[in-house]
Amino acid sequence: MREVAIVAAGMTRFGELWQSSLRDLFVEAALEALSGAETDHVDGIYVGNMSGGQFVGQEHLGPLMADYLGMAGVAATRVESACASGGMALRAAFFDVASGASDLVLAAGLEKMNDGADVTAVLASAADQETEAYHGITFPGLYAMIARAHMEEYGTTDEDLAAVSVKNHAHGALNPKAQFRRKVTAEEVMNSSLVAAPLRLLHCSPVSDGAAAVLLCPLDRAKEFTDRPVRIMGTGAATGSMALADRQDPAFLDAVSLSAGRAYKMAGIKPSDVDVAEVHDCFSIAEICVTEAMCIVDRGKGGEAARSGFTSLGGKLPVNTSGGLKSKGHPVGATGIAQTIEIFEQLRGESGDRQVKDAHIGLAQNMGGSGASSVVHVFQRV
Amino acid sequence: MREVAIVAAGMTRFGELWQSSLRDLFVEAALEALSGAETDHVDGIYVGNMSGGQFVGQEHLGPLMADYLGMAGVAATRVESACASGGMALRAAFFDVASGASDLVLAAGLEKMNDGADVTAVLASAADQETEAYHGITFPGLYAMIARAHMEEYGTTDEDLAAVSVKNHAHGALNPKAQFRRKVTAEEVMNSSLVAAPLRLLHCSPVSDGAAAVLLCPLDRAKEFTDRPVRIMGTGAATGSMALADRQDPAFLDAVSLSAGRAYKMAGIKPSDVDVAEVHDCFSIAEICVTEAMCIVDRGKGGEAARSGFTSLGGKLPVNTSGGLKSKGHPVGATGIAQTIEIFEQLRGESGDRQVKDAHIGLAQNMGGSGASSVVHVFQRV
Repeated sequence: MREVAIVAAGMTRFGELWQSSLRDLFVEAALEALSGAETDHVDGIYVGNMSGGQFVGQEHLGPLMADYLGMAGVAATRVESACASGGMALRAAFFDVASGASDLVLAAGLEKMNDGADVTAVLASAADQETEAYHGITFPGLYAMIARAHMEEYGTTDEDLAAVSVKNHAHGALNPKAQFRRKVTAEEVMNSSLVAAPLRLLHCSPVSDGAAAVLLCPLDRAKEFTDRPVRIMGTGAATGSMALADRQDPAFLDAVSLSAGRAYKMAGIKPSDVDVAEVHDCFSIAEICVTEAMCIVDRGKGGEAARSGFTSLGGKLPVNTSGGLKSKGHPVGATGIAQTIEIFEQLRGESGDRQVKDAHIGLAQNMGGSGASSVVHVFQRV
Repeated sequence: MREVAIVAAGMTRFGELWQSSLRDLFVEAALEALSGAETDHVDGIYVGNMSGGQFVGQEHLGPLMADYLGMAGVAATRVESACASGGMALRAAFFDVASGASDLVLAAGLEKMNDGADVTAVLASAADQETEAYHGITFPGLYAMIARAHMEEYGTTDEDLAAVSVKNHAHGALNPKAQFRRKVTAEEVMNSSLVAAPLRLLHCSPVSDGAAAVLLCPLDRAKEFTDRPVRIMGTGAATGSMALADRQDPAFLDAVSLSAGRAYKMAGIKPSDVDVAEVHDCFSIAEICVTEAMCIVDRGKGGEAARSGFTSLGGKLPVNTSGGLKSKGHPVGATGIAQTIEIFEQLRGESGDRQVKDAHIGLAQNMGGSGASSVVHVFQRV
């Protein structure tokens, strides 16, 4: 297998971008990535997107985006795994380059959620339609049940949940691309509107528009495009039970554990080797469960890790330095690529106020549904 | 790059399968493929599907299908490129195995179109939403304009168009899995209801449910699973202008020409080396344009090729021996894999009444929209 590197990245601001269409967002992110590598050619494009069909009436985003980028002709397809679509698009692009079939491949993610669609209903189509969505439960309710189970099993508290939001908003306040660039206090979180007990408004990631893109090439060609490439050391993907009710332990995310284990194995690293991590905090409880399942914090200690500063900027293992989905925003198909860009910039020393010192190894974990799919990538400064 | 083979296949009947859900269809096809290779393990699953979200309110088909197959845990994702979703799923699976990352990978395609959705509106989301679908044109109209352009440029006649339907129904009458197992005459075609002039009902592929799956592995492991593996010699994908109005020559499919050229080059073959081909005849005019763009018939001679018997069973280069989309049916996401299965069986000598003698090299061409995306695979008897 050929070694693969990321050599450039581009990303729109995340937020309610009413003036931009899905294709506008893609073109902005893609052009920034291409100009970063000073190239106007690619061999292939992978577009991570959850639901262009339901959000804006547009499927078939591969050729549409290639066309609007001025690259009709190039091979292009969409990859979908709900909110893990971006991470799965990166993985497909990685295999394309690793196999030797293509040299320069753009992996992008995008979503246009603010365009009039019933967002909660569309997102619910990432749950099991027959046993969950059809009966009326949506994602805040599913993650609330995960939170209840975690509280019951490990004594996790409202303060633990709030600490994740407080941390991620503090990080996001430093990120110019973030949807919410302001800090929040634990009191604000715990007094915000109840959405699905114990989850409140400030535990939930927002509805966002945005796009992100990274450019991949063989490691041995990377220096043609940048003097600071970032190597993809490992990729791991896994699935779990689609319906929450089918899981033996709702507070443990099997797919996250499996995908992380596979990525660590391919990368040849231990969890303790990781210097900086982006993980899927669609709800504050998700960051707690994910960091535990990935063995970057001890089982049952995900909330404590946020409260103690272990996962804060300046802590032992900073998690979601971008602000995470909570503060940076969560245009669902774009998220996995945006996470990748945060790690890419951290490993290149380009993160400004959010820079983690001496970051050599980073990871991005992206998840679909209530954890039915998960994909993890491990990256290394070259 | 590792050499890759297909070692087993499974497929549901195509048709109006009201009693089967999307997941039922997948499981039936996947289990048949797994039992063909006598394995109950895979490393990954790629699910080609155009619009589970709009047709049946279900995105996130990767983990759902893995779960219902009893394989929760395995890496799985959906790949979408409108009606080329199946072919693009095969291509992604190919890269996964070719890279060395996975050994046993299932590439599946599925669609459940008969479930109450507004099928024509859903399909139209594969066209350019802003410049085509929004203004009311749907695919019969787009392909009717392609047919008009072809008639104007090359003198193609109603008899030419009808000949494609007559040929494909004659082939499909021999296929137990086909939706319409009956022959039609040129008179029946030319007297059928007008849909969008010059296209009539019997020029159009039907609305179908169905699923298909093939199992890939490295060529050097293929004999563990079958004594008659089929090698994937080449893959080629390409895009063209999304909107028909943006194309210099609406009667020539650039993406098809590019994707075929790339697949031939990778396979190291000439078009004249092909013994049997499945191509994307969503409308009869599509087969005419596709066979020309792929250089398997001369430019402007696609209709004549059907009329003269050149592309019939027993002819020089049989095209759509399965019955094609026209007669076999067109559950859009499943089509690319179903085409692959027809070629797999032809090259193994398993096609019964439809068998092409001494078939050594075959190809499958799968297309999205009005030709904005195309993917071609070349296969070889080992």
